[in-house]
Amino acid sequence: MSLLAPAIAPIAALLAAWRERAWPIVHTREAHRADLSDCPPAKRLRGTPTLRIGDPGPMGRVLIAGEPGADIIPALAPEAGEIVVDKPGKGMFWATGLHETLQARGVTHLVFTGVTTEVCVQTSMREANDRGYECLLVEDATESYFPAFKAATLEMIAAQGAIVGWHAASSALLASLDA
Amino acid sequence: MSLLAPAIAPIAALLAAWRERAWPIVHTREAHRADLSDCPPAKRLRGTPTLRIGDPGPMGRVLIAGEPGADIIPALAPEAGEIVVDKPGKGMFWATGLHETLQARGVTHLVFTGVTTEVCVQTSMREANDRGYECLLVEDATESYFPAFKAATLEMIAAQGAIVGWHAASSALLASLDA
Repeated sequence: MSLLAPAIAPIAALLAAWRERAWPIVHTREAHRADLSDCPPAKRLRGTPTLRIGDPGPMGRVLIAGEPGADIIPALAPEAGEIVVDKPGKGMFWATGLHETLQARGVTHLVFTGVTTEVCVQTSMREANDRGYECLLVEDATESYFPAFKAATLEMIAAQGAIVGWHAASSALLASLDA
Repeated sequence: MSLLAPAIAPIAALLAAWRERAWPIVHTREAHRADLSDCPPAKRLRGTPTLRIGDPGPMGRVLIAGEPGADIIPALAPEAGEIVVDKPGKGMFWATGLHETLQARGVTHLVFTGVTTEVCVQTSMREANDRGYECLLVEDATESYFPAFKAATLEMIAAQGAIVGWHAASSALLASLDA
């Protein structure tokens, strides 16, 4: 996981800035129901992993909501009143009701952080863009196991006049909040 | 558009093979309603293009359903009985009802072709994977304006044990149909 760790401090700084301004914060976790009723067989049965979704592992059942291994790390833990979404897919909109939640609050712009860049973050940002949100991905607040995939994703989303959205460094974003 | 043209012949060959077997075929077009009621302002107003969505262009109103410029090219035109989806986003599932249509027919596996690889094709494949479909992208039946983006997308979807799905050449796929 050491390749993902550099994103933690920038995300923590952004969380602090958002909390200071009482702006909405959404935390997402890829996790399934304990009975696996929201886990497609195609997902559970793919490949030959040592442990499959729902199997008992060293940090509880793999990818099951409520288990320690499926929780958000303490350094970035949600606070009371923040939205927490358990999502069965890579994208944060599929089967979560999040779009309705954001619409109810009048949210129009989303700032993306988290891991991994080309999987859950990219998928969620593409869903958000289709739904009409203006999307910004924070370059140093997202990481991947594959640096080349992170770089390609940043390029892809901003290509063709920001076809999916924009990206910027957390320092630039934080500076702009007080501008 | 010349960068996209190499995909046409492989797609035509796959269409012929599917039609011969009477397998379901889905055609998708990114297109909005004439009144733009399904076009998010964030999409219409982004950037400074010469023509925006809905503006009159040389092939009809830009990206409006029913206009010649938003139609499928004659070489790959839908035939009677095939599913045709006009989609307001890059993804083929958002606001189209396609998931329900595919579920009603008992579809479990999807073969992806079309353009562009890293935008509409990738977004649709990620949506499909979250919804539990087994997905295969046909390497020579998809193209991008940016060859590096196509290559990165193929790598990304198949990484980590086919985290989004698989890719193969149309020759291998066609050969397997008769195996």
